[in-house]
Amino acid sequence: MRNNPLSRPKPLSGFPEFLPAGRFVENRVLDVVRTTFELHGFAPIETRAVEPLDQLARKGEIDKEIYVVRRLHAEAGDADELGLHFDLTVPFARYVLENSGHLAFPFRRYQIQKVWRGERPQEGRYREFTQADIDIVGQGALAAHHDVEIPLVALDVFEKLHTDLGLPPVSLHVNNRKLLEGFYRGLGIEDVTAVMQRVDKYDKIGPAAVTELLTRDLGVGQAQADACVALAGISATDESFVDDVRRLGVDHELLDAGLEELASLMHVARASAGGRLVADLKIARGLDYYTGTVYETLLVGSEKLGSVASGGRYDSLATDGKNTFPGVGYSFGITRILAPLIGQKKLGASRAVPSAVLVAVDSEETREQAIAVAAALRSRDIPVEVAPKADKFGKQIRYAERRGIPFVWFGAGHDDSVKDIRSGDQAAASPETWTPPAEDLHVAVTAGG
Amino acid sequence: MRNNPLSRPKPLSGFPEFLPAGRFVENRVLDVVRTTFELHGFAPIETRAVEPLDQLARKGEIDKEIYVVRRLHAEAGDADELGLHFDLTVPFARYVLENSGHLAFPFRRYQIQKVWRGERPQEGRYREFTQADIDIVGQGALAAHHDVEIPLVALDVFEKLHTDLGLPPVSLHVNNRKLLEGFYRGLGIEDVTAVMQRVDKYDKIGPAAVTELLTRDLGVGQAQADACVALAGISATDESFVDDVRRLGVDHELLDAGLEELASLMHVARASAGGRLVADLKIARGLDYYTGTVYETLLVGSEKLGSVASGGRYDSLATDGKNTFPGVGYSFGITRILAPLIGQKKLGASRAVPSAVLVAVDSEETREQAIAVAAALRSRDIPVEVAPKADKFGKQIRYAERRGIPFVWFGAGHDDSVKDIRSGDQAAASPETWTPPAEDLHVAVTAGG
Repeated sequence: MRNNPLSRPKPLSGFPEFLPAGRFVENRVLDVVRTTFELHGFAPIETRAVEPLDQLARKGEIDKEIYVVRRLHAEAGDADELGLHFDLTVPFARYVLENSGHLAFPFRRYQIQKVWRGERPQEGRYREFTQADIDIVGQGALAAHHDVEIPLVALDVFEKLHTDLGLPPVSLHVNNRKLLEGFYRGLGIEDVTAVMQRVDKYDKIGPAAVTELLTRDLGVGQAQADACVALAGISATDESFVDDVRRLGVDHELLDAGLEELASLMHVARASAGGRLVADLKIARGLDYYTGTVYETLLVGSEKLGSVASGGRYDSLATDGKNTFPGVGYSFGITRILAPLIGQKKLGASRAVPSAVLVAVDSEETREQAIAVAAALRSRDIPVEVAPKADKFGKQIRYAERRGIPFVWFGAGHDDSVKDIRSGDQAAASPETWTPPAEDLHVAVTAGG
Repeated sequence: MRNNPLSRPKPLSGFPEFLPAGRFVENRVLDVVRTTFELHGFAPIETRAVEPLDQLARKGEIDKEIYVVRRLHAEAGDADELGLHFDLTVPFARYVLENSGHLAFPFRRYQIQKVWRGERPQEGRYREFTQADIDIVGQGALAAHHDVEIPLVALDVFEKLHTDLGLPPVSLHVNNRKLLEGFYRGLGIEDVTAVMQRVDKYDKIGPAAVTELLTRDLGVGQAQADACVALAGISATDESFVDDVRRLGVDHELLDAGLEELASLMHVARASAGGRLVADLKIARGLDYYTGTVYETLLVGSEKLGSVASGGRYDSLATDGKNTFPGVGYSFGITRILAPLIGQKKLGASRAVPSAVLVAVDSEETREQAIAVAAALRSRDIPVEVAPKADKFGKQIRYAERRGIPFVWFGAGHDDSVKDIRSGDQAAASPETWTPPAEDLHVAVTAGG
């Protein structure tokens, strides 16, 4: 279709693309994610890529990152301006309001789509990337036990990605905004959001720098700042963090509520989660509008990537004036996790094509027999391709080798045999019964590096 | 996250979205499509949603439909203007040029993504829709037999969608641009593209109107116009069309080449395709840049939707000056096929949630036992959700009923039993061994209407 010569195009910075082997890895990861979400009763939705610009721009902080979408030849009377969604939460909120009469609440949904942000591209930041979100949303109210459920789903997903596909293990860090807010208010601090945003930098800049930000930028007293940083330093894989917090001697009813919620979460979830779940009191999700539990997730060995999957509880996903829709959700940064692993060849595919078998063609006159053998194998769910060219034995083998296809079928329809080109073993075979070993049937994800 | 009240949002015309049941249908269809593509040896790729605007706009005819993408606060020095891709062919051509050194040719790829066109929304036309494309691309050359392969893959996909999921059967219509061009040139017509574009309207406006267009708009002589329309009227499910064409008494070497290619395709493919493959000499794909075989596909019973999947052979997908990349491809209009079937409730889902089982909760004190039962069932790949609220027997049943969940698990961890809420049968069960009937395990696609 492109009749004019093109010079070799260059990649666009911030828009990662994979070779087929990388896309195989991504598809396998997304299959595990999707299947696990469904095992936990989350229903799929997909929303359009665009939302009205005025809805996207309402969050303030993020509007500089929005991509505006316009018809090249827009006409008067065209609909309002549109923008590409920058997360899956804003479109989900709109979807819930638009369809609330058709949904049963609590509504459990998952959504796996690309999102776009016009950020300056840098290590680990993309302009186009895939997110996989789960949310549980109630109408009017949503019970606190769903805050426990979300990290269990997340850990189930990551456990399968680790054991089945060789991704790194994770640690899931939990905190509670009520706990933080109550603690800060108990210290007499009023601008709790500003404090949270500074404390959120703890991992990046360290406790001393956070203390300085609090005292210098916000005018928080030294003793209070020290208490905030001491709180941030508390973490535990069980409920012992409660005593550590109490020892700091701060009292506030919101602190009590937050401690109770987080302790209850740790109590219930720890049984299944073991040491992978950490009550980590420096987690704040500074710029997000969470109102209770918050989650962050670190890849073991790649902690400096920052959180690759995060979420939390919000009092109101949306409201239509009559009803509010509180919820709790979690978002997997699929591209953020995979792009570095695939790029550094820590994850790969066992071959670059799905075919387990290449059916060789002796001469163009016998192509129809090769097609028939391929059809017979496919009818038993074996991925096959037919050689594009009648060619000599050695060339057929090399064609398969170049693509990683493990088996070549010779003598289609008259003297059928199949050769494992890795071992060189060749044996007579029938297209009606022969089956490759299970480990060769489909492309496998390989972990290395 | 949306703290200000929103009035109920309205759908955007041309941007279809499904309720979860519709998305289940779409996911199942895409699973069949993807699995079948892989059985035929096509490797997956995914390209970014945007391309440089100057690359998208080169085709001329389509540029009015392009959506331009810009950062809301674009800065001087920002990269070139971008547009959303309007098909998967332009990005694929760019991908092949960009990665040709890393791909093995002939390269067989599939690609399932959304595309965007700023067309005026109307019945069967969307501004955002999903396409599923396969292409086989050679470097320098690509053998003719791949033109036979493509419709066999397409028919394999549609056969499974019909028998497994209840979609309508299809007929796949094939023609050859060389045949048309040779025939027109043999008649002394020079502007063959203009004639093809008029003949392409045959199904919409009928033979008499096409004749009038040819004579009045293009100044084609009456006898020639009659011959063009007579050619367009020829169709056959075997090679008999060759004699019908010959009887029209036109001679041209390009006609001979086209007849031979189409006859060969019908000869080889008919064995597997039966009556679903039609040599149909009115097919022209007027606006596309095909150079040989062309394909269109009609849903039986919904012919007035027009072609829902189409493609063809092109001499040059792309060229980098040194190499050209000829190919043959085919694109399934997934949204075009599914949106009407789902909208008219001709396709639906057996339930609105993936869960086969609801684990009831007697009291909040026993929620942990319910969670343990759910985990045991999930470890054997049974989709489960735990009741959001400790509640009476009847309310738990109604919760399941409203979502179509067939089984409710009672007495988790102390007096386990499972009830089929459709029959009312209830029996003791162990979370380690009980399994629902296979037909209830996953959401099924239901055909009706």
